[in-house]
Amino acid sequence: MHKKTILDYETVELDEATDELVIIDQTLLPGRTEIIRLHTAQEIWDAIYLLRVRGAPAIGVAAAFGIYILAKQIASKQDMHNASKAADCEQDFEKFYAEFVKQKDYLNSARPTAVNLSWALNRMDRLCRSMSDRPVSDIVDALKKEAIAIKEEDIRVCKAIGEYGLTLVKPGDGILTHCNAGQLATCKYGTATAPIYLGHEKGYNFRVFADETRPLLQGARLTAYELHSAGIDVTLICDNMCATVMKNGWVNAVFVGCDRVAANGDTANKIGTSGVAAIAKHYGVPVYICAPTSTIDPDTKTGAEIKIEERPAEEVTEMWYRERMAPEGVKVFNPAFDVTDHTLIAGIVTEFGIAKAPYEESLRMILDKKEKRYRECSGNRA
Amino acid sequence: MHKKTILDYETVELDEATDELVIIDQTLLPGRTEIIRLHTAQEIWDAIYLLRVRGAPAIGVAAAFGIYILAKQIASKQDMHNASKAADCEQDFEKFYAEFVKQKDYLNSARPTAVNLSWALNRMDRLCRSMSDRPVSDIVDALKKEAIAIKEEDIRVCKAIGEYGLTLVKPGDGILTHCNAGQLATCKYGTATAPIYLGHEKGYNFRVFADETRPLLQGARLTAYELHSAGIDVTLICDNMCATVMKNGWVNAVFVGCDRVAANGDTANKIGTSGVAAIAKHYGVPVYICAPTSTIDPDTKTGAEIKIEERPAEEVTEMWYRERMAPEGVKVFNPAFDVTDHTLIAGIVTEFGIAKAPYEESLRMILDKKEKRYRECSGNRA
Repeated sequence: MHKKTILDYETVELDEATDELVIIDQTLLPGRTEIIRLHTAQEIWDAIYLLRVRGAPAIGVAAAFGIYILAKQIASKQDMHNASKAADCEQDFEKFYAEFVKQKDYLNSARPTAVNLSWALNRMDRLCRSMSDRPVSDIVDALKKEAIAIKEEDIRVCKAIGEYGLTLVKPGDGILTHCNAGQLATCKYGTATAPIYLGHEKGYNFRVFADETRPLLQGARLTAYELHSAGIDVTLICDNMCATVMKNGWVNAVFVGCDRVAANGDTANKIGTSGVAAIAKHYGVPVYICAPTSTIDPDTKTGAEIKIEERPAEEVTEMWYRERMAPEGVKVFNPAFDVTDHTLIAGIVTEFGIAKAPYEESLRMILDKKEKRYRECSGNRA
Repeated sequence: MHKKTILDYETVELDEATDELVIIDQTLLPGRTEIIRLHTAQEIWDAIYLLRVRGAPAIGVAAAFGIYILAKQIASKQDMHNASKAADCEQDFEKFYAEFVKQKDYLNSARPTAVNLSWALNRMDRLCRSMSDRPVSDIVDALKKEAIAIKEEDIRVCKAIGEYGLTLVKPGDGILTHCNAGQLATCKYGTATAPIYLGHEKGYNFRVFADETRPLLQGARLTAYELHSAGIDVTLICDNMCATVMKNGWVNAVFVGCDRVAANGDTANKIGTSGVAAIAKHYGVPVYICAPTSTIDPDTKTGAEIKIEERPAEEVTEMWYRERMAPEGVKVFNPAFDVTDHTLIAGIVTEFGIAKAPYEESLRMILDKKEKRYRECSGNRA
């Protein structure tokens, strides 16, 4: 039997036969590839909280599948009317929805700062409320379809980002990426890695440099792993070596993922991105932010308004190590993200095209395009 | 009894009673402070090779003490003439010197790229040869004095660098440093930390940021440790966080150590320094290279001529970790140093003053000053 690579596994999957959420436990990579099956609210919450599934898009999809699975359990436990009379439906819905909201809020508490978690859960909630006059069994069926749609959309969005991103590079180029905005952070392709995977399919022979990305080492553990598994020429470096590879002329473009885009084009990304961008500017290397339009936040005027999460000191001083690597009691500053100034960004690659400076204008045009597409398609929806 | 801090120990010391080399085993810091006593050539070689003593200046001093200790052992093992007749002396010297050179070459092979190792050994060798007409016992005594002089010089040089460096900052300033160019890399004060220690004595209340410095974590293990032990306000950050602390306005100056200075002011430093410098330039923070004049190499025209040592991939992928943190078989690029372009450097701080651009001129003036001082003092020397 042909040995599977990590890319042959689904990052997030619904087992439709058993109604279980199936994920790769990413905390064990690259040492062990363990597929885990989640059924209870507690199991799903733990998986998100403990970063067994991580990456904003993947978390959104996991939450959507998760709340569907829990909704089905709620329905089957409750004694529903076997009728379609409006009054019966409303009575059933009230019982069902009270429990649904409880479970939704519980899942949402797993990682309160991950935008896609609440975004996906709110989308499932809106669908639920829009069907309050329908039998609960219909609602559960609709939730399943919606969760599957969220996953399919994620794949389409990433592929579109990859296609636009691919227009920015040429065969043989050197590409540097930071952290993991790869397939393991999404359902397929990744965001920052999408141009790399699509180029690889076309024989572009990219040379990729993966920053290890301290403190959580997602670059070493995940990006280097998935690109290496795909047969892509990837070289792992420590974060502080990116200036050297750029100075050596080995990097033609930087592609990174994104956590939030402000209206002026400032972006919040994994810690270290803004440093890479300043160094890239010094060496004349363009920096492209790969950002699904769901990360564009027109209500945030500039990056200065974005709150940066600070994480525990132990991630820096001891988490991964055989023994403590820093003295007891020393102060540690451990921000999880930083803000990259729009002046350091050559383009923001979305599924609706590439925004370039001035970003206020180009981002607004991208969002208008999305709105128009949504209105065109809304005939197909409830 | 008052508990000693790491700064109360000598980095490198000669026990004059037993003729042993006494060092802190730096591979065990910060977890354990173990003082080890070295007597044989093999023990001294191992300590340098395995980085139990590290930092160019400290290695130089360790080698000087080491070759004195071995010279004394050679002399005591050999059956010397108990006379001062010139012919007897020459005969004794030949026997002694043949063995001396063997041991010198052996120690020098421990880390062939560390300039100070060969510099100190060659200085001891020159002294030895200049006394070929003297009794071996006199030579051994002179070698001891020379090794002690090398150590005392190191302390004076570091202190002078600290005094010049201190003129570049003011009380309350934020200072960022990379790697360990601290007391643990020298005999006292360090180079990059010298202005910090001298300022601390004067109550300057610096806020210091120590980059952890992957892959070998000298910033976390050594710099954060020694500054914290001294009661200095030090905050440990991952290398990729330096852009954030600069953007936040927390850093007024960068001080780093140095491995080689080219004639045009380009400097070879610990990997990551050039990235810090590019980021500092972007945020308007001055970068000062603390470099004893022994590191200025007028024969190297520019940084492009400096060969950069590449080290084993395992330092990045597994050395410190509980388990392997990167996939088997992935390519790793692990340069130990990088070159910081002179255009990114605000000043090169030496024990003879601060060189500023244009560096060809200012570095030449510094070396002329050193040469003049040497000629003034040469009357005191053999």
